[in-house]
This record gives sequence, C-alpha cells and structure tokens, in this order.
Amino acid sequence: MEGKEEDVRLGANKFNERQPLGTAAQSQDDKDYKEPPPAPLFIASELASWSFYRACIAEFVATFLFLYITVLTVMGVAKDTSKCTTVGIQGIAWAFGGMIFALVYCTAGISGGHINPAVTFGLFLARKLSLTRAVLYMVMQCLGAVCGAGVVKGFYGKNNYELFNGGANMVSHGYTKGDGLGAEIVGTFVLVYTVFSATDAKRSARDSHVPILAPLPIGFAVFLVHLATIPITGTGINPARSLGAAIIFNKDKAWDDHWIFWVGPFIGAALAALYHQVVIRAIPFKK
Amino acid sequence: MEGKEEDVRLGANKFNERQPLGTAAQSQDDKDYKEPPPAPLFIASELASWSFYRACIAEFVATFLFLYITVLTVMGVAKDTSKCTTVGIQGIAWAFGGMIFALVYCTAGISGGHINPAVTFGLFLARKLSLTRAVLYMVMQCLGAVCGAGVVKGFYGKNNYELFNGGANMVSHGYTKGDGLGAEIVGTFVLVYTVFSATDAKRSARDSHVPILAPLPIGFAVFLVHLATIPITGTGINPARSLGAAIIFNKDKAWDDHWIFWVGPFIGAALAALYHQVVIRAIPFKK
Amino acid sequence: MEGKEEDVRLGANKFNERQPLGTAAQSQDDKDYKEPPPAPLFIASELASWSFYRACIAEFVATFLFLYITVLTVMGVAKDTSKCTTVGIQGIAWAFGGMIFALVYCTAGISGGHINPAVTFGLFLARKLSLTRAVLYMVMQCLGAVCGAGVVKGFYGKNNYELFNGGANMVSHGYTKGDGLGAEIVGTFVLVYTVFSATDAKRSARDSHVPILAPLPIGFAVFLVHLATIPITGTGINPARSLGAAIIFNKDKAWDDHWIFWVGPFIGAALAALYHQVVIRAIPFKK
Amino acid sequence: MEGKEEDVRLGANKFNERQPLGTAAQSQDDKDYKEPPPAPLFIASELASWSFYRACIAEFVATFLFLYITVLTVMGVAKDTSKCTTVGIQGIAWAFGGMIFALVYCTAGISGGHINPAVTFGLFLARKLSLTRAVLYMVMQCLGAVCGAGVVKGFYGKNNYELFNGGANMVSHGYTKGDGLGAEIVGTFVLVYTVFSATDAKRSARDSHVPILAPLPIGFAVFLVHLATIPITGTGINPARSLGAAIIFNKDKAWDDHWIFWVGPFIGAALAALYHQVVIRAIPFKK
Repeated sequence: MEGKEEDVRLGANKFNERQPLGTAAQSQDDKDYKEPPPAPLFIASELASWSFYRACIAEFVATFLFLYITVLTVMGVAKDTSKCTTVGIQGIAWAFGGMIFALVYCTAGISGGHINPAVTFGLFLARKLSLTRAVLYMVMQCLGAVCGAGVVKGFYGKNNYELFNGGANMVSHGYTKGDGLGAEIVGTFVLVYTVFSATDAKRSARDSHVPILAPLPIGFAVFLVHLATIPITGTGINPARSLGAAIIFNKDKAWDDHWIFWVGPFIGAALAALYHQVVIRAIPFKK
Repeated sequence: MEGKEEDVRLGANKFNERQPLGTAAQSQDDKDYKEPPPAPLFIASELASWSFYRACIAEFVATFLFLYITVLTVMGVAKDTSKCTTVGIQGIAWAFGGMIFALVYCTAGISGGHINPAVTFGLFLARKLSLTRAVLYMVMQCLGAVCGAGVVKGFYGKNNYELFNGGANMVSHGYTKGDGLGAEIVGTFVLVYTVFSATDAKRSARDSHVPILAPLPIGFAVFLVHLATIPITGTGINPARSLGAAIIFNKDKAWDDHWIFWVGPFIGAALAALYHQVVIRAIPFKK
Repeated sequence: MEGKEEDVRLGANKFNERQPLGTAAQSQDDKDYKEPPPAPLFIASELASWSFYRACIAEFVATFLFLYITVLTVMGVAKDTSKCTTVGIQGIAWAFGGMIFALVYCTAGISGGHINPAVTFGLFLARKLSLTRAVLYMVMQCLGAVCGAGVVKGFYGKNNYELFNGGANMVSHGYTKGDGLGAEIVGTFVLVYTVFSATDAKRSARDSHVPILAPLPIGFAVFLVHLATIPITGTGINPARSLGAAIIFNKDKAWDDHWIFWVGPFIGAALAALYHQVVIRAIPFKK
Repeated sequence: MEGKEEDVRLGANKFNERQPLGTAAQSQDDKDYKEPPPAPLFIASELASWSFYRACIAEFVATFLFLYITVLTVMGVAKDTSKCTTVGIQGIAWAFGGMIFALVYCTAGISGGHINPAVTFGLFLARKLSLTRAVLYMVMQCLGAVCGAGVVKGFYGKNNYELFNGGANMVSHGYTKGDGLGAEIVGTFVLVYTVFSATDAKRSARDSHVPILAPLPIGFAVFLVHLATIPITGTGINPARSLGAAIIFNKDKAWDDHWIFWVGPFIGAALAALYHQVVIRAIPFKK
C-alpha cells in the first residue's frame, strides 16, 4: 500500500527503468496500446443489435455444453465404486478445465467467452461491459447450466442421478462452511486474475504470447482449482454451474450450502478485479 | 430465433457497438477478411489434379494411424483386469484427443485435416468443399480405419481381440439406445462446433489466437467428449472410427447398434453447421 | 500410386484448384517459401565452426536429461507394486512425451532438436543435414543416453535397478518379436511424420500455426505412441534411449531383443521420409 | 571444452554454415536482436519507481497462490489412503507444473514471472536483474510461500496437517541425502535451462515459436521434474516452496533435510546459467 503512495509521490512513469528479463521480452513502458474507455452502464444501441443477442445465445449454448460434458463426466466417475475403471477425479478436473479452454476459444470472438457469472461480474466491476449486458449474460449462463444438467439427468434417470449427487456443489464432510467459502474465494481469484492477465490491453498482440495463448491458461486455471478443491466443495468458482446442478438435483443438502457458491465466487472476482486494476494497472493513480 | 428476426429488421452491421473485452481483443466489425464463395458440388479440374489425390491419401494415412494408436491403447487397457497397471480410461481419452490434435496439425495443410466423416459432412453442408471431394474423403477415411484396426487385430490375435471387444462402439449396459444416440449427437456437436470456430475465416490470423492454436482445441474437444461418454457408448463421434472397429470386430453386438454411430454424428454435425452458419455468422440474412 | 502418375502426366501445379477449408487457411499454391537445397554429404567448414560442436554438446545434454527424467519416472512406478500410489503408466507416457516437448523447444534453435537417432536418420534421408553431422549427432545422443540412465542407476543401486528392469526396452510376454518390430515401425512413423510436418518449409511462418506450435505436436506424438505401445515393448522409437537403458541394465533379456529397437525405428523413419518427400511434397516429380 | 577452444582459435562467426532444419526454421546467424547489457548490481532509480514495488507484490501474490493450490492438492491426496479416489500423484505433478504455467503467463509482463528463488538466482548470475531486485524478489517469494501454506493449514487444522506432512520436502526412506541433493540439482537444471532457452534474446519473436509458447515449456519442465522426483524428495526445485511448507509444518524431519532444498536448487540454477551463457551463447569468447 505504501508502494502505491510512492507511486503517486514519485510519478510512476518518470523513470526509464530496466525491465528484468524474466520470461517476457515486452517492455512495460511502450505506449502502443489504447486503454479502452470504461463501458457505460446502459448502451441503448446494444439492445437493438443482432450481435448482442447472438452473444447471449452463445453464452447460453456454451454453458449448456459446459454443464453437459462436465456433469456427465462426474456421473460416470461417481457411478463406479472402484475409481480405477473410470477417468478418475483427475479426469473430472480435466473435463472442467478442458471445456473452459475449448469454449473460451470458440466464443471469445462472439461474446467474450465468459461462461461464468463470476467472470462477468469481475469484468463488469472493471467496466469492461455494460450492466445490461452483464445481467443478460448471467441469466443466459444460468439457463444454459440448468438445461445442460437436465439432459444428463435424462440419461441417468431420477434415482441414479440423486444417488450420485448429480454433480452438485456442497461442502464435504470434515470441512466447515468457512473452509468452503475460503476455497471458493481464492479459487475464483485464481481464475479471474488469469482472465484479467490474459485480456490486458497493455500487452500488445505482436510482442508477446498473451493474446495467442489466452484460452489455454484460463482453462488451466479452472483445471488447477479443481485439482485443489474438489475434496472440499467439489469446486464451484462458477455460480451458474453450481445453480444449474443444484436446481436439477434439488435436494436440501445442495441448497443448504448454495449461498457459498454465489458469495464466494463474487468476492473472489471482486478481489481479482481490485488487484488487477489497482495494483497491477494502478488505474486510480493515473490522471 | 426472434433475435435473428431482429437482425433482419434492424440490420446487423449498422451499429458500431462496443465489444465486451472478455478474452479476445479482436473487433467483430473489421472487414479485413474475405468470405470464400460456397464450393460448387462438382469441380471437374479437381479430379485431374495431383493435390486432390494427395489429400485423399493423406486422409487415408491419418485415419489409419488414428485407429492404430487408439484401438491399440484401448486393447492395452482392456487386457488388464486391474486398470491401475495400465494408462487407464483417462489414457484412452488422451489417445483419441491427442491423435486428433497431432493429425489435424500434420494434415491441415494437405487435406484440411478432417479424419472424420462427420467433420467432412458438416463442412460440406457449409459448402466448404465439393461433393466429390466429400464422398472420396469419407471413403478413404473408412478404408484407413479398417486397415488401422486390422493391424491391431494382427498384434492381438483373433481370440484376444474378440475377448476385449476390439475397441468397437456399442451402447453400454444400463443405457438405452436413445441415451447413446443423444450422447453421439451432442458429442459431435461439440467437436464440429469447435472445428467451425477454429476455421472461421472472419477471425483474421494477425489479431487473434484462432489460427495459431486451431488443432489444439479440436483435439481437446475430442478428448473431452471421450471423458464424458466413454461410459455410455465408448464414444464414437466419428463414423469411420466406429465402422473400422466394427468391421474388424464383426460381432452382432457391435452391428446391432452401429446405425447410432452414423445417424448420431451426422445429426450433430448438421446442427453444428446450422448453429455456426445461421446464428453465429447470420449468413442467410446477409445480402 | 496411380495418383502420382497422374501428377507427372498432368503437371501438379497447373490447376488453380480450390482448397478445402478444413482447419487451415493457408493456400497450397503460394510460392512464398524457398525450398532449401539438399545438404551435401560432407561440409568441411562445418567441422571448423564452434556452432557445430555446440550443437553436438546440446544433443548430448538433451539426451542425458531425457533419459534421466524418463528412466527415473519409470523406476518410481516400477518400484511400487500398487501403481495407484505412483504417477502410473500414464505418467510414464507423459514423462517421455513431455520431455521431448520441452527439449525440442529448448534445443531447436541450437541443434535442430533431434534427441533421437531415428529422427536424425529420417532428416538425413531427406538431405536436411550432412552425413558427418548426422553421425556425430547419433554418437552424442547415445553417449548422453548412457550417462542419463547411469545417473538413475546411481540413485537406485545395482540390485534395485536390475529388479525393476531399469527402463530397458524388450518385447513383453504374450507378444511376438514381429509384433514388437511392427509396433516400433509404425510408432516411429508417427513421430517422424510429425517432425516432417512441423518443419515443412512450405508452410510459411506468417500464415499458419505450424512453426509456432511445432514442439507441442512432436512431444504429443511421443506421448501417444507410448500410450499405445508401452504394453508391447515399453516403447522405444528412439534407438539412443533403448541403447542407453540396455547398456546400463546389461542383462541378456534386454540385449536379445535389442536389434528391434534399431531396425524398427530406422525403417519407420525411412517410411516417414519417403511418405513426406514423395507423396506429400512430390519432390521426385518436380523439375 | 575443447570445442570452446576451437571457437576461440577459429572465430565462431566466420563461417556461414548451413543450419540443420530440425524443427526450427530460424537462422542462427541473423543479428536482428540486441543483447541487453548486463544489469548493474544496484540501480538507485529502481527503488523509487512504482513498477519495482508492483513487481515485488506480484511475486508475493504469485508464490502465495502457487503454495495454496499445490499444498492443498498434496493434502487432498495425502488424506486418502486409497489414492484411486483422489487426483493421484500425477495430479500433484500437474498442480505444480500447471500453476507455474498459469502464473508465469500472468506475471511475466509484471515481474518477469520468477516465483522461485532458484530462477531469480540463475537470472541474477546471468546479470539479467540487479542484486537489490534479486534479494527483494526472494524475500517476497518466501513470504508468499509461508502465507500460502498457512492458509492450507487453516483449512485442515493442526493435527491433520501434521499427519499428512503438510507438503513439506524431505528425503524419502530408502534414498540417501546425496540422492536427494543430486535430484534437486539436476531437476533445477532442467527448469532453469528451460527458462534461459525461453527468454533467449537471440531468438526473435517473429520467426520462432519461442516467445509465443514460453510459459508452457517452463510449466512442463516443473511438471516433468515432479513426475520423476516426487518419490525421492517430494520435489523441491524451488527453495521458497520448500521453506514455506517447512515453516508451517515445523517438524524436525522437515528441517533436518532443509539445506538440500536450498543448496541443490542454487547449484542447479548456477550450472544452467553457466551452460547457457558459456556453451550455448559463448559469451565469454565474444568481444
């Protein structure tokens, strides 16, 4: 925090300092990028354009496919008592992370590739999209998630689906609700921080790996958080995914902890937005 | 659907709207790409050019190698009763997805890298290649698949090969034929939708990760669908792969369900082509 | 084969045919690349330049690290009777493929990143490097492999090392020598074909994913062949790797089959060179 | 070594030799890069710039997240006696390697993306950053690591955390301290050599895959070393990671071997810096 005061006092861009050549050759001081202006809360013309509705449809379809593939993978593992004859818990983590990689790749140019209300919320806090767009994205994501989980229930039948918990998020035996909330906050921070890093307008396309690889580290972030927190909560870090599975599962044990999978991700996303905008970009201290 | 009517009424490209900066910086309105014209059904000169036959040979060789590596991996896992001393079910999913990644990478510049009649069918519906080319590709893919599975049978001998089902696709015990058909439709949709996204001419090479990474998300799509649907059908989403394994295995239990692995993938590919051309690209509504 | 005769009769480049847009946007007919001339067998100046010896050292170090990491991984899995408490057979496949990815990435600009006598042999047949360079690379690769396996033996002690077979390649019980030879031939074909595709001078850097991703599909090819053929031979497809492990292990059961791991990879590499130069590039039919 | 004398005697750049086209098309003799001058030991202006403190904060946050995710994954696996119901040992290796991939990607443009005192030490030896920056980075990395492991202990409680060894590094039963030291030296060599290769200023951005993929092979190097040496030491190759886990675990069995996880990585990093600067770049022999 005193660092930021230093910044203000000394002028952050006065020094032509040397850049440590860790792994990136790009200079921090080149000004060949344009910071886009903050998005207004409401953009009337948006509501009259086809590409806005197309983006909403793309979010719906992507979240549908996300829940379909991931919950189906979870059920395939849950069904088998000996995990050795399934793709295993690691396979579940790959399903979640891999789908985010593939879907961000496919929809980035259409809707921005959010597929997650926490990502939409974080980017909204950074004023990257309008409030109307943020709200509509979240609604479409939740609808897509419900449909995706519903198709899986259709495959398994009501009894089997409920027996194997239907991929619903809840705090596991042996952990407190506080553990679960903490795991969701830090996990979502990892994801949304990666999203911010990957979409940073300051890193120009020509000189770095950033826009080229973008969907890959975002997918990996989801994979890694699942590796770590599947034993604690099954890993939400995506309120649409948690809501979709909970609605289709619809048992008290899923609903009792459900608030954790909204409050945790939203806090984590807000912290990541704060960290990126205030510490990394130092936006409040710029004229 | 009403969204598309909006588009027609309002004119999709009239609004210079702001693009939500999700993960891609590319603008949607830049017109620096040329939509290739639809391919004619028959191109006489094609049949007289060496590169056409070379593409067919490349499809044959790629599908041969695809079946060889994947069925060999399946047999290595099936042979062992304790899956822990094998690469496991997850390893099978990697073999299918990884081979598609490597083979699309190798043959993309030669034949377009289909290696799958459902992909060829989807791209044909979008008029990306001629009917003659589509039919010849499918024939070569099926021939390659039969040869690849045949070599594996040579390694294992008739008895062992039949004992372990020879990598043939069939609906598993506990699932209906409808479940299997549904799984094939949605699975192929995921794959062909990724192919369309990766080859979209609108996304220009210089400003996005799209053409750079293309084979990677396509391979991942195959991997992910296998994670989800191996427990249901063994995962086809590729009629040549299913046909090759069925012909070499040649038992009633493979043939009884075989229609599912042609009808399902073709419906899924058609839906993906429809979604991409009509919703994402809005081609019918353009002059 | 009749296709190639077509080519000669009709002139391969006379037709301005349409390219099927599978996954790559690059045209096949653009002539913006320069085919490098075939390398002479002997280049006197090479032997007097530092970068030649540096390349040889880089091949030695890379093969040393390759054997060290992979054989250590194999031993860690072999030591444990319950594979569930190890990285598993799939982990072994990742170690081989992943090391090739990382080492090709690191040494591509120094020595071309062969790390495998079969790759060197295939590229020599295509006249990509001189005979002197090819021979010296192979010698350095074999020396590096012996040292790498030797360090692992130092960690495990003579008794343990021999108990767990020291990562040596041999044909498994239940397979014939012919199966082993076939598996090595097709496996090396997959690897060397990927190497040729990744380094094809015709695919220009600016318009395709080819030079960008190159080390990744090469590493994946190694990973995939291991998934498929570890149950058969432990997977060689790299004579230096097989020789290094055999010399340090030094038991009859490794030496009896050892010829397979030289003859197989060299035949596979030769077939891949033939396929790429004759079918894909049609070099013999060009003036 | 005689090779280098050759170099001095003959003049390394006199010969316009042919480059073997292994996997990279880039020429070694093009001089279109600028070698940055060695960093001075102390840069006064650095201490007065905001971007210096921001880089330190970024190293702290990245190492915090690294330990949080990885130790949590280790604990989830350790807690379960049957590893089949966890992500397994291979999942632990993915957590370490994957986090380094994602975090190097996110912080490369801010701090250089070290997240590891051994990497900082190696780059300092090559004079890529000042002494003040190197020391401050290491301090922040260690602080971040302690906090990350501390949060995991908060989730598990003191008893459980100690029961499962808290992710602390120590030499496993059956291996000598010399084995552990050797494993750390070679393992860190693999990592730091990859870092040097990925950040080599000589490899220009436009003509090679190097700056594009950089974070991926660095992450893979960490993954691969874990596959190989988890059975020996649990794998350190990062003194901050070892220190953070040891401080929070705080038992004699962790502290007794702790020197290995500082001495080993620092020797390995020094050898990698030596290999890259002297052999690969031949810097001492240039005017």
